[in-house]
Amino acid sequence: MKQYFSHRAREIRQSVIRELLKLTERPEIISFAGGLPDAETFPAAELADIAFDQLRNDYQKVLQYGTTEGSRTFRNAVIEWMRKDGLNLSLDHMVVTNASQQGLDLIGKTFIDPQDVVFCGAPTYVGAIQAFRVFQADMIGIPLADDGINLDILQREIKTARAAGKRLKLIYEIPDFQNPSGITLSLVKRKKLLKIADQYDLLIVEDDPYGKLRYSGEPIPSLKSLDTAGRVILLFTFSKILAAGLRIAVVIADPIFIKRIVLMKQAADLCTPVLMQRLAARYMLDYDLDAHLEKSRNHYRIKRDAMLAALDRYMPVEEGVSWTKPDGGLFLWIRLPEEVDTEEMLPRALERNVAYVNGSAFYCDGGGKNTMRLSFSAATEEEIKEGIKRLAEVVCEEIARCRTAVTS
Amino acid sequence: MKQYFSHRAREIRQSVIRELLKLTERPEIISFAGGLPDAETFPAAELADIAFDQLRNDYQKVLQYGTTEGSRTFRNAVIEWMRKDGLNLSLDHMVVTNASQQGLDLIGKTFIDPQDVVFCGAPTYVGAIQAFRVFQADMIGIPLADDGINLDILQREIKTARAAGKRLKLIYEIPDFQNPSGITLSLVKRKKLLKIADQYDLLIVEDDPYGKLRYSGEPIPSLKSLDTAGRVILLFTFSKILAAGLRIAVVIADPIFIKRIVLMKQAADLCTPVLMQRLAARYMLDYDLDAHLEKSRNHYRIKRDAMLAALDRYMPVEEGVSWTKPDGGLFLWIRLPEEVDTEEMLPRALERNVAYVNGSAFYCDGGGKNTMRLSFSAATEEEIKEGIKRLAEVVCEEIARCRTAVTS
Repeated sequence: MKQYFSHRAREIRQSVIRELLKLTERPEIISFAGGLPDAETFPAAELADIAFDQLRNDYQKVLQYGTTEGSRTFRNAVIEWMRKDGLNLSLDHMVVTNASQQGLDLIGKTFIDPQDVVFCGAPTYVGAIQAFRVFQADMIGIPLADDGINLDILQREIKTARAAGKRLKLIYEIPDFQNPSGITLSLVKRKKLLKIADQYDLLIVEDDPYGKLRYSGEPIPSLKSLDTAGRVILLFTFSKILAAGLRIAVVIADPIFIKRIVLMKQAADLCTPVLMQRLAARYMLDYDLDAHLEKSRNHYRIKRDAMLAALDRYMPVEEGVSWTKPDGGLFLWIRLPEEVDTEEMLPRALERNVAYVNGSAFYCDGGGKNTMRLSFSAATEEEIKEGIKRLAEVVCEEIARCRTAVTS
Repeated sequence: MKQYFSHRAREIRQSVIRELLKLTERPEIISFAGGLPDAETFPAAELADIAFDQLRNDYQKVLQYGTTEGSRTFRNAVIEWMRKDGLNLSLDHMVVTNASQQGLDLIGKTFIDPQDVVFCGAPTYVGAIQAFRVFQADMIGIPLADDGINLDILQREIKTARAAGKRLKLIYEIPDFQNPSGITLSLVKRKKLLKIADQYDLLIVEDDPYGKLRYSGEPIPSLKSLDTAGRVILLFTFSKILAAGLRIAVVIADPIFIKRIVLMKQAADLCTPVLMQRLAARYMLDYDLDAHLEKSRNHYRIKRDAMLAALDRYMPVEEGVSWTKPDGGLFLWIRLPEEVDTEEMLPRALERNVAYVNGSAFYCDGGGKNTMRLSFSAATEEEIKEGIKRLAEVVCEEIARCRTAVTS
C-alpha cells in the first residue's frame, strides 16, 4: 500500500513518547513520563455552567460554523487580558487555532518549503519537530545553556547553513520553562536573539504554553513584546492554564502573516469550535483567570519543590548526575554521566515501577542519550518522593553497570 | 513580506464565496448563497444537558488531552450506527477529525505530492479544491451528467494524464446530493467508478456530508460499502446531521491508511476535543439520532419543495433556463443560457436583495460561467418564494441584456 503515500507520509515516524506512554499506563507505575497538565487545575464546574448556558441560550451561534479567524468575543477577551503583558494587539493580529499544535502546523504550511532551515533547541518540543518535519524542514538543533539556547553556536550554524546555500527560514523557541528542559531564556539573550533574527532576516516562532505557570523568580518580557520588527509569531495556548481539552490557542503575528495563516486554516478545518472559544471567553469575562492561575501556580509549585527536594536527597550528584531547577512549567531535565544511555535504562526503570522519557526523543538530529525528562505535574507529593527514590536507585545501578562494562 | 511565505502559501487564493458571503449579510437580502445547515435542526437542549453532565462528572477526561485516533466511546457508537448501512467496521478503520475539512487536509498530507493528479467533479466542493491545492495537487475537473460525473470523460482524462507521464493519485467524489449541484451518482455508475479505480490503481475519496438528508427516492449504497479492494476513503461528518459547531467527523479507510493519517493528525493538532466527541456519542447512545434525522428531513423537504415550486412558477424555462431536482442535501444548481455570466449578474441580484453563489467558484479549472448554486437550507418558505421571484426577474433581464448586446 505504501506506493499511495506522499513523500512526507513515507518519512514520518511514530513518536517514541507515544509508544512509551502506553507502557507506563500500569497503575503500579509512578510515571514522570507524561506531559499532561493536572486535571485538578481545570475549572470544571464553572465551564459546565458556561457550556449549559451557551448551548441553551445561544445555540444558533455556538453550534453553527464560526469564522476562520475565530470568535470576536474570545479574541477581544484575549487582547484585553494580554495588555498587561505589554502586548497592544488588535483583532487582525490574531487567529484562533485548535491549540498550539495546529498553530505549528499552520506555520509549517504557511512558511516552510522542503529543505527550508528551521533552528530549534537541542532538545526541544517533539511536537514542533514533527509538525515542521511534515513540511520537510531541515531542522538544525542548537544546544541549550542554563540561560537558554547557545547563541554563539546559533550564529555559527546560521553562517554555515548560509554558506552552504540553504534557505534559512525561522527559529523555533520556547522561552519560558522550555519543554523538555525547564530552562528559561534570559532577558539578555532574548534581546540578542531578536537582533540575530534581524541581522539574518529570520522569523522567530515563540511558543508560550507555560509562561503563566511561574512558581519563582520574576517574569521576563516575551519575545513578542520586545519585537519591533514584526518578526515574532507568538503561539499562546490555554491548554495548561485553563483546560487542555478545550483545544484553544491563538497565533499572534503581523496582520500580513495572519491573513495568510487564516487562508491555510480555512483549507485545514474551516474553523475552531465556537463553543470552545466561548467557554474560554466567558471564563475570562465572568470569572477571574488571574486568580485561577494563582491557584494553579500554588498547586504546581508544591509538586516542583517536592521533586527538587527528592532529587537533592536521593540522586548521586557525586557520580556526575545533574538536573535543571525550573522556575515554572511542568518539566525538569536530568543529565547522567556520558556513558549512561537512558533509552537502554528505561526497561529497568519500568521494572522498578517508575517511568520517564529518554531525552534523545527531544533531539531533532541525535544526541541527548544520557539525558531524561521528568514531569512533576501528574504525580502526588508522596508519589514524587517515592518515584525519585526508585529512579535514583536505578540510576546508581546503571552507572555502576556502565562503568563495569567499560573497565571489564 | 512575501519572501517569507512557502510556495503553497503564495499560490493560495481567498475563496470567492467567503468574500461574497460578506456582501450578503445585509438583513434585507434573501440569501441562497450560504451553505450552512439550519440551526433549528440542531438538538441544542439535549446537547446542553449532555455537556453539563460530562463537564461536571467526567471533567478529568473531557477537559484533558484525548488520543489522536479519537474517543473509543464515540468511535464504537459510530461503528454500531453504521452497521445498518452495510459497513462492518472496527476501531482501527476510523480516525476522528475536526469535521471533514480536516479529513480532506489529512488526506492531502498523507497522499498528495506536488503535481499528483486528483480527479474531481466540475463543479465540486470548493473546500476540497482548496485543501488539495495546498498540497499542490494537479486538479482535473470532470463534467457532471444528471446521474453523476461523466465516466467516459473520466476515463479519457485518466488515459491522457497517464500518457503525459503524470502520477495519478485519487478521485474525489460526493456521491449523494453533491455540493454544489445536488446531483446523485447512480448505483450503476458507483459500481463502474470502483472498477475504473481498480483498473487504473486509483484511490477514491468519498465525501458524505448529506447522505442521511434524503427527502425522496431510495437510498443508494455508499461507495465504501461496495468497495472490496480497500480503495475507498470515506469522510462522514456530523456537521449537517447533528450540529456543524461540534466539528466532528470520521475518516473511514483501510487500517494501513488510518495508521498513517493518525500520524499526520498527531502533527496537525494532537487530538479532537473529547467533549465534542462525547456530545455526539452520548446523543447517539442516549437519544435517537434516526428519529432526529427524520425530523430534519421533514424540515428540509418542505424548503426544497418550496424552492422547486417557485422555480417552476417563476423561472423562464422557455429562455433556456434549467435546474437540478435534488433528492436531498442543501443545494440545487441552475444553468442559464451560455451567454449569461452569473458573476457579472451578481451585483444586479444583490441590488434586488437576493443572493446566490456564481457557479464558476466551484470549478477547479475554469468553466461554469453561466451557472449558479442555490441553497434552500436557511431561508423560510415565504422567503424562498419571494427570493426566487426576484431572482427570476433578474435572470430575465440579464438574458435580455445579453441578447441585446450580442445583436447590437
